Amino acid sequence: MNKSTIQHILEAIEKGEIKAAEALIKLKDLPFTDIGHTKIDNHRSLRNGYPEVIYGEHKSVQQVVDIFQAMLNKQSNILATRVSDEMVAGITAICPAARHNAMARTIFFEHEALPQTQSTITIVTAGTADLPVAEEAKVTAQVLGNKVKLISDVGVAGIHRLFAYIEAIRHARVVIVVAGMEGALASVIAGLVEIPVIAVPTSVGYGASFGGLSALLAMLTSCANGVTVVNIDNGFGAAFAASQINHL
Amino acid sequence: MNKSTIQHILEAIEKGEIKAAEALIKLKDLPFTDIGHTKIDNHRSLRNGYPEVIYGEHKSVQQVVDIFQAMLNKQSNILATRVSDEMVAGITAICPAARHNAMARTIFFEHEALPQTQSTITIVTAGTADLPVAEEAKVTAQVLGNKVKLISDVGVAGIHRLFAYIEAIRHARVVIVVAGMEGALASVIAGLVEIPVIAVPTSVGYGASFGGLSALLAMLTSCANGVTVVNIDNGFGAAFAASQINHL
Amino acid sequence: MNKSTIQHILEAIEKGEIKAAEALIKLKDLPFTDIGHTKIDNHRSLRNGYPEVIYGEHKSVQQVVDIFQAMLNKQSNILATRVSDEMVAGITAICPAARHNAMARTIFFEHEALPQTQSTITIVTAGTADLPVAEEAKVTAQVLGNKVKLISDVGVAGIHRLFAYIEAIRHARVVIVVAGMEGALASVIAGLVEIPVIAVPTSVGYGASFGGLSALLAMLTSCANGVTVVNIDNGFGAAFAASQINHL
Amino acid sequence: MNKSTIQHILEAIEKGEIKAAEALIKLKDLPFTDIGHTKIDNHRSLRNGYPEVIYGEHKSVQQVVDIFQAMLNKQSNILATRVSDEMVAGITAICPAARHNAMARTIFFEHEALPQTQSTITIVTAGTADLPVAEEAKVTAQVLGNKVKLISDVGVAGIHRLFAYIEAIRHARVVIVVAGMEGALASVIAGLVEIPVIAVPTSVGYGASFGGLSALLAMLTSCANGVTVVNIDNGFGAAFAASQINHL
Amino acid sequence: MNKSTIQHILEAIEKGEIKAAEALIKLKDLPFTDIGHTKIDNHRSLRNGYPEVIYGEHKSVQQVVDIFQAMLNKQSNILATRVSDEMVAGITAICPAARHNAMARTIFFEHEALPQTQSTITIVTAGTADLPVAEEAKVTAQVLGNKVKLISDVGVAGIHRLFAYIEAIRHARVVIVVAGMEGALASVIAGLVEIPVIAVPTSVGYGASFGGLSALLAMLTSCANGVTVVNIDNGFGAAFAASQINHL
Amino acid sequence: MNKSTIQHILEAIEKGEIKAAEALIKLKDLPFTDIGHTKIDNHRSLRNGYPEVIYGEHKSVQQVVDIFQAMLNKQSNILATRVSDEMVAGITAICPAARHNAMARTIFFEHEALPQTQSTITIVTAGTADLPVAEEAKVTAQVLGNKVKLISDVGVAGIHRLFAYIEAIRHARVVIVVAGMEGALASVIAGLVEIPVIAVPTSVGYGASFGGLSALLAMLTSCANGVTVVNIDNGFGAAFAASQINHL
Amino acid sequence: MNKSTIQHILEAIEKGEIKAAEALIKLKDLPFTDIGHTKIDNHRSLRNGYPEVIYGEHKSVQQVVDIFQAMLNKQSNILATRVSDEMVAGITAICPAARHNAMARTIFFEHEALPQTQSTITIVTAGTADLPVAEEAKVTAQVLGNKVKLISDVGVAGIHRLFAYIEAIRHARVVIVVAGMEGALASVIAGLVEIPVIAVPTSVGYGASFGGLSALLAMLTSCANGVTVVNIDNGFGAAFAASQINHL
Amino acid sequence: MNKSTIQHILEAIEKGEIKAAEALIKLKDLPFTDIGHTKIDNHRSLRNGYPEVIYGEHKSVQQVVDIFQAMLNKQSNILATRVSDEMVAGITAICPAARHNAMARTIFFEHEALPQTQSTITIVTAGTADLPVAEEAKVTAQVLGNKVKLISDVGVAGIHRLFAYIEAIRHARVVIVVAGMEGALASVIAGLVEIPVIAVPTSVGYGASFGGLSALLAMLTSCANGVTVVNIDNGFGAAFAASQINHL
Repeated sequence: MNKSTIQHILEAIEKGEIKAAEALIKLKDLPFTDIGHTKIDNHRSLRNGYPEVIYGEHKSVQQVVDIFQAMLNKQSNILATRVSDEMVAGITAICPAARHNAMARTIFFEHEALPQTQSTITIVTAGTADLPVAEEAKVTAQVLGNKVKLISDVGVAGIHRLFAYIEAIRHARVVIVVAGMEGALASVIAGLVEIPVIAVPTSVGYGASFGGLSALLAMLTSCANGVTVVNIDNGFGAAFAASQINHL
Repeated sequence: MNKSTIQHILEAIEKGEIKAAEALIKLKDLPFTDIGHTKIDNHRSLRNGYPEVIYGEHKSVQQVVDIFQAMLNKQSNILATRVSDEMVAGITAICPAARHNAMARTIFFEHEALPQTQSTITIVTAGTADLPVAEEAKVTAQVLGNKVKLISDVGVAGIHRLFAYIEAIRHARVVIVVAGMEGALASVIAGLVEIPVIAVPTSVGYGASFGGLSALLAMLTSCANGVTVVNIDNGFGAAFAASQINHL
Repeated sequence: MNKSTIQHILEAIEKGEIKAAEALIKLKDLPFTDIGHTKIDNHRSLRNGYPEVIYGEHKSVQQVVDIFQAMLNKQSNILATRVSDEMVAGITAICPAARHNAMARTIFFEHEALPQTQSTITIVTAGTADLPVAEEAKVTAQVLGNKVKLISDVGVAGIHRLFAYIEAIRHARVVIVVAGMEGALASVIAGLVEIPVIAVPTSVGYGASFGGLSALLAMLTSCANGVTVVNIDNGFGAAFAASQINHL
Repeated sequence: MNKSTIQHILEAIEKGEIKAAEALIKLKDLPFTDIGHTKIDNHRSLRNGYPEVIYGEHKSVQQVVDIFQAMLNKQSNILATRVSDEMVAGITAICPAARHNAMARTIFFEHEALPQTQSTITIVTAGTADLPVAEEAKVTAQVLGNKVKLISDVGVAGIHRLFAYIEAIRHARVVIVVAGMEGALASVIAGLVEIPVIAVPTSVGYGASFGGLSALLAMLTSCANGVTVVNIDNGFGAAFAASQINHL
Repeated sequence: MNKSTIQHILEAIEKGEIKAAEALIKLKDLPFTDIGHTKIDNHRSLRNGYPEVIYGEHKSVQQVVDIFQAMLNKQSNILATRVSDEMVAGITAICPAARHNAMARTIFFEHEALPQTQSTITIVTAGTADLPVAEEAKVTAQVLGNKVKLISDVGVAGIHRLFAYIEAIRHARVVIVVAGMEGALASVIAGLVEIPVIAVPTSVGYGASFGGLSALLAMLTSCANGVTVVNIDNGFGAAFAASQINHL
Repeated sequence: MNKSTIQHILEAIEKGEIKAAEALIKLKDLPFTDIGHTKIDNHRSLRNGYPEVIYGEHKSVQQVVDIFQAMLNKQSNILATRVSDEMVAGITAICPAARHNAMARTIFFEHEALPQTQSTITIVTAGTADLPVAEEAKVTAQVLGNKVKLISDVGVAGIHRLFAYIEAIRHARVVIVVAGMEGALASVIAGLVEIPVIAVPTSVGYGASFGGLSALLAMLTSCANGVTVVNIDNGFGAAFAASQINHL
Repeated sequence: MNKSTIQHILEAIEKGEIKAAEALIKLKDLPFTDIGHTKIDNHRSLRNGYPEVIYGEHKSVQQVVDIFQAMLNKQSNILATRVSDEMVAGITAICPAARHNAMARTIFFEHEALPQTQSTITIVTAGTADLPVAEEAKVTAQVLGNKVKLISDVGVAGIHRLFAYIEAIRHARVVIVVAGMEGALASVIAGLVEIPVIAVPTSVGYGASFGGLSALLAMLTSCANGVTVVNIDNGFGAAFAASQINHL
Repeated sequence: MNKSTIQHILEAIEKGEIKAAEALIKLKDLPFTDIGHTKIDNHRSLRNGYPEVIYGEHKSVQQVVDIFQAMLNKQSNILATRVSDEMVAGITAICPAARHNAMARTIFFEHEALPQTQSTITIVTAGTADLPVAEEAKVTAQVLGNKVKLISDVGVAGIHRLFAYIEAIRHARVVIVVAGMEGALASVIAGLVEIPVIAVPTSVGYGASFGGLSALLAMLTSCANGVTVVNIDNGFGAAFAASQINHL
């Protein structure tokens, strides 16, 4: 990135191209679209083709559909995550081309394809039950233009399963480790590779898992170097950060 | 306020206007109406036209309707919050003029309008999903006689959205900031304005949000001065406190 | 407040009074003083005579003394809170006129006196052991130009002690309630007055007090309306918010 | 109580009335009835007419009905608490005389009436929403042979409501205080009376109430002397302890 | 107790014996002594010879000595708990007759002896390390006029030790169970006796004891009926409540 | 166990029996079957006839059925735990011989019977409501080839019920104690026996049980020696560990 | 074990060898020695040569020395754990032959040597900092008559270190895994061996380790079968349980 | 990275260059040095010149010095973190060239300089008190061969301070945000830049900060995309991960 938007506008005032009053209006109106309940941030997507993202949980069906429609109007790629069946129905009604991934709980509309990276983000899960979170990460990374590889169910209880894939994992540029229960897989992988490891604790487990707390604390206190952590079940966030790294 | 009720009654005894035994009865019977399961506090509403308030959650439908009816009998303004659909049906049956706000989960009956303040309470939300709590605050502030402005979805992830409204926020007499997840909006706004900031953490979020705990702790430990905090999702309480300030 | 600093600078560019490049420098350099480890924010104090505030805890003695010296250079009123004995010694060495309050753990240097408010902030404590927090609040409110009244040890275990002072509390414009243990005093007072109540939980207590958590939760979940809460032991923050309200 | 059962059996062996082998059988078989999934403890009820008690939650409907039937066979008074509608149906089918209290979620069968105490257990609730817990306490205390008085909705937000009843509370032998949210009522009452106060925190509240935790911690850390506490929503336990005291 | 103080004062006004203004003064001045930082509550001690109680923790040495002196002036029995060595020195200097109990961390001055109860409060500890809390309870119960018996180190790990004392425990009117770690002793004793059981969790333990939390939760969730609980390490509170019961 | 698989493969390479490239393939492909979402670990079952185990919770019905089918293909004994009714239906459809235990929430298919141990695992529950967890343990221990005895409802509230069975418990080689609420039974039994005690806290309880946390903490902090603990409600894990001990 | 002590005593009464009154005295006096603050349990040590154990923490120096002296009088092996330097000095003064292990914080006096087991308990630590807990376990296991092997610093961050020792671990009869931080080592080892794994979380770590909570939760929620867990830093308890298993 | 060490060794066996028995020895002995209490992992440092790292906390002074000495023997760069003054003295005694950074609590010995990256890691702190953690990160990143820029005290309470540096932050390849209290700075910066943001919560704060928990939860639940989080106060870990990214 070269000069900031603010600096550009300041220079435009200086050159007499726009007035201060106009500048204030510009600063206020340009970078988002106000649809009442929501201010859609057009900032990034306009500039680089990245998809707009809607987080579905805690919103009403109508709100999600409204936001999706407003984004459609601006001809963006659009990704909605944590969507309910009702949201999927509402979105499909206004955008039949949107692709739903039931396990990931995502729906995606591709207005124009992003160029794909050469390097790979590898997503590894400890168990089968971690797949919904891993799928959310996979969909997210893909729509952000990354080559993605998913390896599931290689948790440390049968560590030979992991070793069968460790070379594949080492060939990635960044690895996302998705694990619930005690989340030990993140530490083990981070001890075996020299690439960035992004750990996603999941709410898989019961009792003393406390909804993912055990895995979260374990990943934060990993004895292995190079592990960074995102929120419980946050496949989207892990993929977003991994994509930033993969695009460096 | 001049003299307290207790003092008045003591003086009345002294002057021989009433007897001690009567005084005791007065002190016991006057300030509330006993309808069995509930003692309705008539204290404030009788004196200043403020609405009676019923908190619906954890009560049975019948209890809420009983209380509403008893208040109607005393010709009060009445606000019920956290009402279920069944409660709305029951109240509307006995008071068709009551106005229901579905998003705010409130129902309000206006017996006589309160005078409105000159100054404004501004309510700001970090995200669209925080709107139900903000609406509860808005309805509450309005029925307490305040001019209210609501600005939604200006969270810190796209801070330019906030800056477009910062002057509007500064013109308020008090601002209510409604935010879930990490609740950073409260700190940022408190750093930008010199009016009281009342922060409402919401349960919007998942995983390490722990039902609003993350936003609550963040708001309590804000590095910005002047932030006070109410309970998670307590739009009513924030508006009540803001109204007290706005009426000073 | 009339126009914002940003708007002023934009207009100055428009009028040709300054250039965009200069404006950027202005925006960066003006509002704070960089002394290496710390960026002192001169924003408010320059404009309205308010004191600069230094939070001492977690800083080194040298850092606190450095900051104090830099503020002295700009001829501000200066308040340092949570100061250790070593910090007091270091500050007194460079500023003998600074006044130390041992119980409040504050040190204050008054460059020029602020005008005092007509209306009062009343600070109430549940117990004797809450006094250090109340003193921090008292000193803070005073140096921010408020008339302050402190009533100590009127907790609900002997509620007649509170009633002896309830009229005095009602005459305040805003009341700060400082209480540890179960923090019930905030609810009781808020039920008896119609002014804003700012509650400060304290770490006074043991066992299930969990360092002030019991009082904090109790105050947040108060059944009385109009209570807002600050961090555990945050006498400074309560006084700052109260001062904002008292100056409206 | 005079001599223990164990001592009696030892003496019986000594006198040659029974043999050691028999004694072991006696010790094993006498004091409970084994119905497979449950060992019904006949200990107390046989001796003093106290009701058998079944805690319904976490048990299956069939288990509860089985236990009820086994107790019926021994002609006991029987109290079941935390019963679901299905349990009530199942019990009523085998024991039409059982009395269901829907708010308390109890069902009671009286085989023979217990003598009632002269002195009173008074149950006080902070709010209307605390009534189910208070009703559980009331039913329990009554079936244990106590005179009971219930005063509801006198929480500290409108403390004059409490004062109207404080003399009535003082005339009890023991008082049970039922309160959710911040649970301040327990402290206030304990400061006003000189009889034992048993505090029951309830799960009434939201957000920082954390399912009754705020009230629980507040009651445990009460600044007033003489408060003892039972589990959240444990109306039964409070009444049981109060009955023990009331029968001293 | 017959008539309340408030009622007496009201009647005095009615009879013309005092005026309302005087009554207000009476109500304000009579029941406590204001020594600046502390309002000493003279309420109970004046009436019944009960000792005044000072809770030492979180207070300064000077404050504790001041309060002690003020109480001495009124010729009360005085108990100070949680006293530091410095407080003991300060108190002994002004009151050489005060008796210090190092293990209990109490100091007591007896102005006139209270009559002792016929019935006994028995205090039982799970381990030797629970003795300081048990001693605090013992001293408190004694100075409140109770006959006290202390049985230590009969925890459930060697349950035969408990059975050797169970008859002695049953002969008490109320039993206080003091236990740290998993606090199981409270449940076991409550299952064996039919008198009120007051459980005191202690902070004895480490790791998952979390400063007494494990024992506290265990006692609150006891499967045995009749257990009520006080704060962690609150020997004083348990003894106060037990004394109330023992004096019924 | 003699030599490890890895050592065998290394020796095979050394002897020229296989090549390194083959060895890598062997190491990767042999010990598990990849069915896409899941890598089935064939390690143990192939060698010793132990059942394959499927943990049903958090998996989809289709995933569980797929895994069950893949295991059937390899002619294993198969145990699925935490199965929903839909999973039972799906499994029964492909394997009518599978035996469902509704209370334990398990389904088991026996391909060939395991030899049974001479020594016994005894499972003891504190209450009737703990039976589902105890049944999961019982089924697990049985399908792992152990003789099992289940004693239910002998919690410490009526400790004579326990004593009637204590000799039976002592005759086991290892005892599993299943208890919710305060979990005291584990400490009491561990104090009475000299065999390993594996404690399973259950989520039976309410309020301060916090979903089994109270029992978990109590068991971890047991004052009795020899108690080890598994996760809340983890009947399977307790039985697995007990079986390892019973087979030593 | 054949017949229980209680049964023996009952039979003695039956045979007329002793009287019931004597039996009661026997039951009360035999199994422990009362030294005032402590009831020393002679039960096990008398029978099998096992050492008496004193847990030093939370006890006073004098109490620990008293208990040690009383045990010396009975000519027992004696192990004291968690001893302070003062306790070591006090014990050495009365028993110069006692051996102090500074890292383990233990002191041991061997009256007569126990026979040693053929099979081994292997103790494995994740890091160097876990050694004090591992040493406590080692000393305990040794004085209970076990052959012990200690392997330190083989945590999962460099998993090749573990693999170098995995065969040695597999040759044990039971393995104790000592790990702080995220505690992943327990899961990895349990996945690699088929012997009982006892996991000891340690308080090694900082921040989100929360004093060992992260490791504790991780071990409780291990995805590997056969892991049982003891309290944080409880090397003694792990060794005691391991010894019970090793002596089966 | 090309082929893994394991594969190399397998191939060497295949070619007859080494025997299986030797291979096992190689696998066990090569990658670490056993100095008794510690197994020093030589893995990475041997290959790429990276420093060996010693985490000082929870280790004894002697252990740290031993490890340092063993690393010196292998002519490595050596970084020790969380070192006490005693450790610094011990290390300096054997390695006078080691450089101590008191604020960072690190000591570093450079055997040979690493090549420095072209791109920058920028470290930003919210407050002055966060500097020790930021310094730990700075030292770590530098010794790992990174160009580092540190910007301190630009927290959101005075957000104009941040804006003065936002362009500088954008020019980094990765940014580390160090913040205590409510940790809002991470969200604000992540909303303003498009590079990876690694957030380090610090234990700066008091009361509801709960030792850094508030900042930790806030960062994990950030509404801004691209934030990953490390443990509280883990400057080292953040720098290690940032270095991995910066070297991609």
